[in-house]
Amino acid sequence: MLKRTNETKVMRDVIHGYIHVSLQIIWDLIDTKEFQRLRRIHQLGGDFQVYHTAEHSRFSHSLGVYEIVRRMVHEIRDIREYLSEDEKVYVMIAGLLHDVGHYPFSHAFESICPIPHEEFSSRIILGDSEIHEVLVKADPNLPEIISSIISYNHPNDLLNQIISGQLDADRMDYLLRDAYFTGTSYGAFDLERILRTIRVKDGKLLVKESGIHSVEDYIMARYHMYWQVYYHPVCRSYEMILTKIFERLRYLYQQGPQRLQKIEMFLPFLSGEPSIEDHFYLDESAALYGIGLLTKDEDEIVSDLAKRLLNRRLFEYETIYDESQIQEVIKKLENHGYDLDYYCIIDTTSQSPYKPYGEKRGHVIWVLGEDNNIAELSCKSVIVQSLVKGDIKKDRKIFFPKMD
Amino acid sequence: MLKRTNETKVMRDVIHGYIHVSLQIIWDLIDTKEFQRLRRIHQLGGDFQVYHTAEHSRFSHSLGVYEIVRRMVHEIRDIREYLSEDEKVYVMIAGLLHDVGHYPFSHAFESICPIPHEEFSSRIILGDSEIHEVLVKADPNLPEIISSIISYNHPNDLLNQIISGQLDADRMDYLLRDAYFTGTSYGAFDLERILRTIRVKDGKLLVKESGIHSVEDYIMARYHMYWQVYYHPVCRSYEMILTKIFERLRYLYQQGPQRLQKIEMFLPFLSGEPSIEDHFYLDESAALYGIGLLTKDEDEIVSDLAKRLLNRRLFEYETIYDESQIQEVIKKLENHGYDLDYYCIIDTTSQSPYKPYGEKRGHVIWVLGEDNNIAELSCKSVIVQSLVKGDIKKDRKIFFPKMD
Amino acid sequence: MLKRTNETKVMRDVIHGYIHVSLQIIWDLIDTKEFQRLRRIHQLGGDFQVYHTAEHSRFSHSLGVYEIVRRMVHEIRDIREYLSEDEKVYVMIAGLLHDVGHYPFSHAFESICPIPHEEFSSRIILGDSEIHEVLVKADPNLPEIISSIISYNHPNDLLNQIISGQLDADRMDYLLRDAYFTGTSYGAFDLERILRTIRVKDGKLLVKESGIHSVEDYIMARYHMYWQVYYHPVCRSYEMILTKIFERLRYLYQQGPQRLQKIEMFLPFLSGEPSIEDHFYLDESAALYGIGLLTKDEDEIVSDLAKRLLNRRLFEYETIYDESQIQEVIKKLENHGYDLDYYCIIDTTSQSPYKPYGEKRGHVIWVLGEDNNIAELSCKSVIVQSLVKGDIKKDRKIFFPKMD
Amino acid sequence: MLKRTNETKVMRDVIHGYIHVSLQIIWDLIDTKEFQRLRRIHQLGGDFQVYHTAEHSRFSHSLGVYEIVRRMVHEIRDIREYLSEDEKVYVMIAGLLHDVGHYPFSHAFESICPIPHEEFSSRIILGDSEIHEVLVKADPNLPEIISSIISYNHPNDLLNQIISGQLDADRMDYLLRDAYFTGTSYGAFDLERILRTIRVKDGKLLVKESGIHSVEDYIMARYHMYWQVYYHPVCRSYEMILTKIFERLRYLYQQGPQRLQKIEMFLPFLSGEPSIEDHFYLDESAALYGIGLLTKDEDEIVSDLAKRLLNRRLFEYETIYDESQIQEVIKKLENHGYDLDYYCIIDTTSQSPYKPYGEKRGHVIWVLGEDNNIAELSCKSVIVQSLVKGDIKKDRKIFFPKMD
Repeated sequence: MLKRTNETKVMRDVIHGYIHVSLQIIWDLIDTKEFQRLRRIHQLGGDFQVYHTAEHSRFSHSLGVYEIVRRMVHEIRDIREYLSEDEKVYVMIAGLLHDVGHYPFSHAFESICPIPHEEFSSRIILGDSEIHEVLVKADPNLPEIISSIISYNHPNDLLNQIISGQLDADRMDYLLRDAYFTGTSYGAFDLERILRTIRVKDGKLLVKESGIHSVEDYIMARYHMYWQVYYHPVCRSYEMILTKIFERLRYLYQQGPQRLQKIEMFLPFLSGEPSIEDHFYLDESAALYGIGLLTKDEDEIVSDLAKRLLNRRLFEYETIYDESQIQEVIKKLENHGYDLDYYCIIDTTSQSPYKPYGEKRGHVIWVLGEDNNIAELSCKSVIVQSLVKGDIKKDRKIFFPKMD
Repeated sequence: MLKRTNETKVMRDVIHGYIHVSLQIIWDLIDTKEFQRLRRIHQLGGDFQVYHTAEHSRFSHSLGVYEIVRRMVHEIRDIREYLSEDEKVYVMIAGLLHDVGHYPFSHAFESICPIPHEEFSSRIILGDSEIHEVLVKADPNLPEIISSIISYNHPNDLLNQIISGQLDADRMDYLLRDAYFTGTSYGAFDLERILRTIRVKDGKLLVKESGIHSVEDYIMARYHMYWQVYYHPVCRSYEMILTKIFERLRYLYQQGPQRLQKIEMFLPFLSGEPSIEDHFYLDESAALYGIGLLTKDEDEIVSDLAKRLLNRRLFEYETIYDESQIQEVIKKLENHGYDLDYYCIIDTTSQSPYKPYGEKRGHVIWVLGEDNNIAELSCKSVIVQSLVKGDIKKDRKIFFPKMD
Repeated sequence: MLKRTNETKVMRDVIHGYIHVSLQIIWDLIDTKEFQRLRRIHQLGGDFQVYHTAEHSRFSHSLGVYEIVRRMVHEIRDIREYLSEDEKVYVMIAGLLHDVGHYPFSHAFESICPIPHEEFSSRIILGDSEIHEVLVKADPNLPEIISSIISYNHPNDLLNQIISGQLDADRMDYLLRDAYFTGTSYGAFDLERILRTIRVKDGKLLVKESGIHSVEDYIMARYHMYWQVYYHPVCRSYEMILTKIFERLRYLYQQGPQRLQKIEMFLPFLSGEPSIEDHFYLDESAALYGIGLLTKDEDEIVSDLAKRLLNRRLFEYETIYDESQIQEVIKKLENHGYDLDYYCIIDTTSQSPYKPYGEKRGHVIWVLGEDNNIAELSCKSVIVQSLVKGDIKKDRKIFFPKMD
Repeated sequence: MLKRTNETKVMRDVIHGYIHVSLQIIWDLIDTKEFQRLRRIHQLGGDFQVYHTAEHSRFSHSLGVYEIVRRMVHEIRDIREYLSEDEKVYVMIAGLLHDVGHYPFSHAFESICPIPHEEFSSRIILGDSEIHEVLVKADPNLPEIISSIISYNHPNDLLNQIISGQLDADRMDYLLRDAYFTGTSYGAFDLERILRTIRVKDGKLLVKESGIHSVEDYIMARYHMYWQVYYHPVCRSYEMILTKIFERLRYLYQQGPQRLQKIEMFLPFLSGEPSIEDHFYLDESAALYGIGLLTKDEDEIVSDLAKRLLNRRLFEYETIYDESQIQEVIKKLENHGYDLDYYCIIDTTSQSPYKPYGEKRGHVIWVLGEDNNIAELSCKSVIVQSLVKGDIKKDRKIFFPKMD
């Protein structure tokens, strides 16, 4: 498993300068068809509808996560000393592979398919795939180990935290990357400084008190990215139409699967038993091609929604200040003969910059004080404490088609 | 045609900060389905195989070209005064639309379809398309005018030069954009300074002598982008496999079109009579989906090439120093039973940083001297003169599948 | 006053790309000796002791403030329409000149000289200076007008707000500039977006509700710059030694001015009657040269402090958690024979990210709601509200010389 | 000498992110007063007259050179293996100290003082200085060793090349740094890629053939920085006035040193026997203070030139196309009564991007071919070959005071 490549291979990357690969197994995993498929899945789903330059894929993000993990296990002394050489490789692989189960337009697609993408990542790692083959060749136990880290179940909890805690490599890469490709400065934070101030104590990932400011900045960066990008109403609008297409497909499927033969790429997911191969073929190209075919479908709802999506006739929206707005919209929609199940969506978003209590696994940031004691972040940062005590920003909007 | 939007609309852009739209016609053109299709065509074809972050589309590039034209006609006094208000709009539209005819994986695709993409741009503008409708609604002559600029045939030659000369908006945007998304510093040059030093004399686009250094820098940027990105051997390898897939399709089509029914997206192009609608549906999603279907085709050559492309088992390559290398490779290929027509390609690339003589239309850069006379760039720049007199960099490589 | 230069002159600037000057009076003011003197005053006083690249001057900052004002009065429609052509020039001049009264090492120097630097700016503008001459030549009332804007007393309050409110050009430039030169990402915020969302209503500078996120980001940027740069303990240590040198000089002067003849540059400030010419000669070069001379002074305290400053033997510091720490330090200092008046400083810093109440002039940010009503920022931003309600970050440290 | 600091200390740097120090001796050298003096010497002399943000010092540049050397000896395998642990420290120290002998406004000052600044660096290292003390404490031979590297005389020639060859750490830092602080993109090149392609063979620093493009880019970056920044006519004008002030001082000194008592900082240099302490006190603050005093001198020439310098009434200039221009200027100057020795300068600048022949020590770039042979750069790069064969850019200007 620790076999090295002839020389360190590098891939130029806009965020990290270079991605460095010096283990053969990493190189081989990148070359598998399941990993290459990630090139065909946008990192931000339909957000490039608003941020037209946000066309980056989960492929480059996954390489970026790997690179941050690689740096964490080699450059942060506490981690380097806490982990065995094998564990370092485990966690680098887990960083690389954590997203292989992603569907096109991730969250929207779950209205078709009830299997969460994280679970599909595990299926691919454990099942009949090129990835599985590469892992097993190195060590028969490797698939199980990697799967356990991705599922946050590895006995050495530090491995889990590196992949999905509050200061994990996943989040750090996607914030920086999404900021670069959307052209917003909001997501920028000081990765170098955070890496320099990370410590380990009792198997817990900590940040030194002197690094609190960069963590505050990171938390604010995240908060802003949510409101400016991830929750942008036009992005939401795109996502909703996708969701409604998939819901309508599910309905049509229940009416009789035979009429959906043309869109074979979606069938296994509608039937509930997608294989790893089915998943492989369902990339965004396939999904968009399928949606293209739906524009000619005889079902008016699905063909209308498909046309809206492809030609960007998205839903309009209003912020709801008063319940009467909802009634007004509904009345107008009914007058125009729209099916409310598909053409009227009320969407509530809320995002707290950081939550200190009652959170599952690793969702708290711990600070190593100058006095060497450990405290939860909001006890140390006046800013974070204020944010925790304050109200949570909420937003409620109604989405509907443009009507004259 | 000069109808303004309610307020200037902006789209955030990583290269220009914002794209500014204050004319309704521009906004309407962006919203046509033919223009939106450009989101589904990569700017750099298969180059993201090497530069994994180069996943940007012709959509954002086209907006960028429009934005540079918009700035040129408003911010450069000589141009502002030389053009009428209508001509300013013409050239902004031409900048926006110049690439709408692009196929997926542009150059490779021409082995299927003999119509150059520039010509298809004109067809879309002049033919039955949403773009055409928007243009005609503003002015019945507009389609012809825009088409003439894109074809470098407008009677006011300055319009042609702004879209495709040596210092045109197209090139300036793609160099900056490709540099940003590949993460190479090579393509960076000083757009602001070049814009500040552009002048017009006798209908000719010129650059002031004091701006020569930034033009030298721009020429070198272009030269480096060619060798580091556009001619990168792995990018070429991807392109060649695409070309060979399309050549094989053409061969199979001649053997009998009926067996290719499954890949209906390619058929109109193979038959030579693609409609605007056929072109609309053939985006990269469709092309890659079609290639995905080919992996299961019974023809071994096309299915092998399709698998190579999708799973990135690209061709190897060697720089040819000696003709005997070619013979050796051919011998080995024959021993392995490879069809040389599809598995052996000799590729010669050469790129001069700048050519001053014998060039068609606008391919020379003119300098306005401090003495107010006009001279060709290489007479004014010692650097460019040296480059012009020097040898041209050439590179010859042989590409072939990996063999043990 | 509105006389234009032959062509717009530009100066390249790392923050704004270019500083654009198209009025002759601006050009003439930049060329005055009092404005040129600002090149010899560091923007961040002694902070380059910590951030070694923070060597930028008040000269470039002043140009930057001018440039932001220039953009505000030309690019923000509400401001453009609210101000007369003359008023636009007034406020651009005020932006340019607001800092001309600065002393070297600004705040520390006030232990020598009781005249606040803002007042000295007015003295220069109103008194016998090249700046005054240029202003009067354009309009005899101009000095009074400019002085009134800088003193926040102009009858058109919008002019005052542009120069020193909560969203003023001064602050926006220094945050971006200080971030660039210290190399911290903390100070970066989205200037373009803030400029795009500024409005004017009833003579009040407002920000549109849709711009709230960029204002939140700006407030956090400011907060972080304070803690990471402006209040950095090593920077404070440098400042304190300066303060103590000046305090000692004041003491020595009271003992008998004749013994301080050698440091003639400080004398007029010690005597309390500095002329504009005295101020002109006292730049940082002069001050540091004077301090260099003090290293050889017979007074042990002043010569020791001067040596500490020049050779960077700064004071150590401890965060005070417990009053007993103070006693301990004092005891140790006494044992070493240090004069506590000069060698023991207790420093309390606190910084609230934003204060909504009880603030003088323009220190509140007003938001123009989607409903067209005006509200104070913390009523609209959950984040800012949390910060306002939360605790204020405080820090208390003791500074003293290193002792073995 | 190899004693480490408790933990790696870092200083934030705008070019390298951080400067990393883990050896106590490096830390101690930075803290010496001779090294701290470099904070008071601008890296670009008077160039901030044109590029107002170019206010960076030789202090930060020296740290940057050290950092590049540190990376070269640790990250480039060939160098790491070729050098002993001691040699690595030698060359890091040499990188740090190579500029300590600099005068204010370096080249201009040599009209006062005939000792080249490189020689003064050696004097400080070998003589009575804090730097000397720190070095000797670690190893009595260290001063001699460091001095030999700086003078390009160390028996292990690789050490010399790292500090001053064609691809040395000095040049790489100053190009990047000067580009950052002037805000020109010209000086940017790909440091990471160059570092990745450096090799050592037979004690020679080489660059791999695959790195040629980044070297071409680096050479062009250098060329552009010369013409756009270092040879900028306004920068030259500033430098010339400085030179003329110093020449006039030398003349006045010969007339009788006693009348120059007031400007004691210059006297030891005029007398030809400056001590290390004299050098220490003569920083830019002192020099500018001295020049400030000269504005009141009774000698009209020196006081006029001093006023011109401080108040930026620099000389005008004309490019010489025809010898008659010179005669015209001279006639006009004579009519105005100007002393031609001080008020008329003809300045010829020329800069070849790269010279392959007849160059002393390390001034050639060697390329390690794919065939493992070594060739001089211009044999491998078509671009460089063209530049070498082409003409050399020359520029001849006449400088003189503005006359009506």
